[in-house]
Amino acid sequence: MEFQKINSVHLEELRSIVGDSYVFTSKEVLDINAHDYTEDLRFYPEVVLKPRTANEISAILKFCNTQNIPATPRGAGTGLSGGALPVFGGIVISMERFNTIIQIDERNLQATVEPGVINQVFQDAVMEKSLFYPPDPASRGSCFLGGNLAECAGGPKAVKYGVTKDYVLNCEVVLPTGEIIWTGANVLKNSTGYNLTQLIIGSEGTLGVITKIVVRLIPLPTENLLMLVPFFSAERACEAVSAIFRSGVIPSALEFMERDCIEYVMKFVDVKIPLKDGIQAHLIVEVDGNDKDVLFKECEKISEILYQYDCDEILFADTAQQKADLWRARRSAGEAVKSHSIYKEEDTVVPRAELPKLLKGVKEIGAKYGFRSVCYGHAGDGNLHVNIIKENMRDEDWDNEVPKGIREIFELCVSLGGTISGEHGIGYVQKNYMDIPFNAVQMNLMKGIKNLFDPNGILNPGKIFPESK
Amino acid sequence: MEFQKINSVHLEELRSIVGDSYVFTSKEVLDINAHDYTEDLRFYPEVVLKPRTANEISAILKFCNTQNIPATPRGAGTGLSGGALPVFGGIVISMERFNTIIQIDERNLQATVEPGVINQVFQDAVMEKSLFYPPDPASRGSCFLGGNLAECAGGPKAVKYGVTKDYVLNCEVVLPTGEIIWTGANVLKNSTGYNLTQLIIGSEGTLGVITKIVVRLIPLPTENLLMLVPFFSAERACEAVSAIFRSGVIPSALEFMERDCIEYVMKFVDVKIPLKDGIQAHLIVEVDGNDKDVLFKECEKISEILYQYDCDEILFADTAQQKADLWRARRSAGEAVKSHSIYKEEDTVVPRAELPKLLKGVKEIGAKYGFRSVCYGHAGDGNLHVNIIKENMRDEDWDNEVPKGIREIFELCVSLGGTISGEHGIGYVQKNYMDIPFNAVQMNLMKGIKNLFDPNGILNPGKIFPESK
Repeated sequence: MEFQKINSVHLEELRSIVGDSYVFTSKEVLDINAHDYTEDLRFYPEVVLKPRTANEISAILKFCNTQNIPATPRGAGTGLSGGALPVFGGIVISMERFNTIIQIDERNLQATVEPGVINQVFQDAVMEKSLFYPPDPASRGSCFLGGNLAECAGGPKAVKYGVTKDYVLNCEVVLPTGEIIWTGANVLKNSTGYNLTQLIIGSEGTLGVITKIVVRLIPLPTENLLMLVPFFSAERACEAVSAIFRSGVIPSALEFMERDCIEYVMKFVDVKIPLKDGIQAHLIVEVDGNDKDVLFKECEKISEILYQYDCDEILFADTAQQKADLWRARRSAGEAVKSHSIYKEEDTVVPRAELPKLLKGVKEIGAKYGFRSVCYGHAGDGNLHVNIIKENMRDEDWDNEVPKGIREIFELCVSLGGTISGEHGIGYVQKNYMDIPFNAVQMNLMKGIKNLFDPNGILNPGKIFPESK
Repeated sequence: MEFQKINSVHLEELRSIVGDSYVFTSKEVLDINAHDYTEDLRFYPEVVLKPRTANEISAILKFCNTQNIPATPRGAGTGLSGGALPVFGGIVISMERFNTIIQIDERNLQATVEPGVINQVFQDAVMEKSLFYPPDPASRGSCFLGGNLAECAGGPKAVKYGVTKDYVLNCEVVLPTGEIIWTGANVLKNSTGYNLTQLIIGSEGTLGVITKIVVRLIPLPTENLLMLVPFFSAERACEAVSAIFRSGVIPSALEFMERDCIEYVMKFVDVKIPLKDGIQAHLIVEVDGNDKDVLFKECEKISEILYQYDCDEILFADTAQQKADLWRARRSAGEAVKSHSIYKEEDTVVPRAELPKLLKGVKEIGAKYGFRSVCYGHAGDGNLHVNIIKENMRDEDWDNEVPKGIREIFELCVSLGGTISGEHGIGYVQKNYMDIPFNAVQMNLMKGIKNLFDPNGILNPGKIFPESK
């Protein structure tokens, strides 16, 4: 089935919906909306709309639905699985004008926000009221909350505080057929019908366009301590991870970075991280809470364990500046690798104690298919970002051999009890691997859900499902 | 559409699936399976099956699906919304033989369990390994984990630790059409396709029969402190609740009990709770963690706030026995009320700061329709169990006036941002109120999901949807 191309009559109709000033067909705007942060992919929309209200989006989707025109919602375009790419052209619905924090409700520790609010803008706003919204992907300085919901974004704090899905209580969603619904209620517990909220979160903009979000907040912890832990063996670093949790302490962050990754980062941002000869990997371990003495005790406990796994001398980030630098280094890992070479990033996730097996397997598979990988990620969650580097690899190997290797990596994840995406989503680039975690029965249920919400398949087509039009 | 009645040929077929010894048609067994803890309702199954494997359940459901026979899965029968009642007769699938804790994985802080394991048996087993599975409904001594998933059960710890859905990573489910699937992966983060796990949790046995459950565990806190806080005004007690969270402390339990409730409890179980003249309500406040000094500081902070809301002298439960007694009192509230009179329990939930308005409204609505209510519940979650007492009320008022009052109470919940069930589910007794939180669009999505999973409507019919056959 083919979609209809947009013509001048369509454009007139779209202008009448969102206003002349918010319909864009210039090369410049189309170009910006043709890519996100995923590899070097480019797919051009025919038109970019910047609506301001749920009613406008409803009218747009009703129009698309009757005219058989594809529509792809777009947040800040920081996605890593191509979720915002308009792979069949058509309309990009940019959510950037949905940028209001509607309410921070201090009485209920809840907030109502629009999906185009930048994650960090929101975090800072609630922090001013001593409240905390933990999900903070590496791109938090630019990514939108709506995109965070669409992909069920995580980030370093997820290990203690959970991911996006654990904070969203309710959302307003425009369905592909144009109806506007709320998915739940503004409550902490809800056993009232099927959980539509959790169905929307992580659905990657394929079931509806999120137009309002109600999240719960928690009191902001007042203290934290941050350690940088060098290891001579990357596998030993991974082994230490699950041991930490077994000690009874839950760190507020537990990140892993291979040596190569740190070297790339230091070339990319102005941060100095001590890197002795022979060091193969680092863990970044943070604890937080309201009592510094307790945190020091927790760090002692953690340190004892880390030394059992043959770490080198543990370094504490003593000042706020040192902490900020270390986090800046970690957060820029993805971009640092990207600046070095064309790459593919795989968002592998396994039960955390299987991390050493995953890392070992990734390297073996790389050797087999002739690619190098740089690994880092949220070790405490068993979530390892495997960056496969093209460098001097021949195009034909990159195109033919690497996908075989990726398939083996994902098969390894699933055999270890894991799956193929922890926090980036399937989107466009992982959809051909969906047969690894899911069989036909599971896929048919998911397709049935898609078909129920979007009978004409006009919303964000070409995503998640291998054979999607 | 009518279901087919079970005949002797059917019984023969069912015996061949589960074995002669696990097919029950005796009056005694049918009687046990005709009710749960919901009011005084009775619906008789035609046969009770006690299968042992997912494959047996698959064969049963395939049979039901082709023969148009209704099947209702049943846990321990402690549900409060009639979810396990076989309202159209047919088969009850008792899950009691699925009673194995398959693995407690200390390396990954995960466990794999069968749905017929009793909540407390499981909690005790993980506690022995210094691990913690927080969801603990009042019925934890007898309820099954499978039922906890079906209703998305909560309990007192939910206020700090979350509800059942926040711990389940993955489950094995037999679909109504007989296929056996896993819903996700054994990982803490998962952005791989639609969230089937969260769709199953809280679906009240209408989308599939859960046969294995993978949950995450957390380190067991080693210390706790427990306070009993009397108030001369029930509304002031409710007002104090949201103030506590605004102080930056998250209690591990924050329960509310009206005076009447405590009086019923003391008649029902051998526990003595001081109850001065004029005291209208109590809060039970618990904090937990690993450092007693920190907990004492938290209790000081909480106490300061409580006194601002005019509480009477705060009592600490000093010994393990006192703590156990106080929890036993709270946990027996439901049964104590039930022993007093025929009653209806409404599982209202609102944003926590709206609790005073909810309580006030419940009493006003009761006065309007001539019924008395006894209220208690998980105040920290805004989850108030409203027990409407029949006592000497005329049957015609009970049948005609009370439902009008319940409707107004639920309308009030929704107008306050809440909904009609926090942790008990909709099941059979709340389904006629589903038009209050949801409009036709939302209901059609839910019905579409039901139809996708169960095209012939044979699994747990007569639940959740008002017009369900």
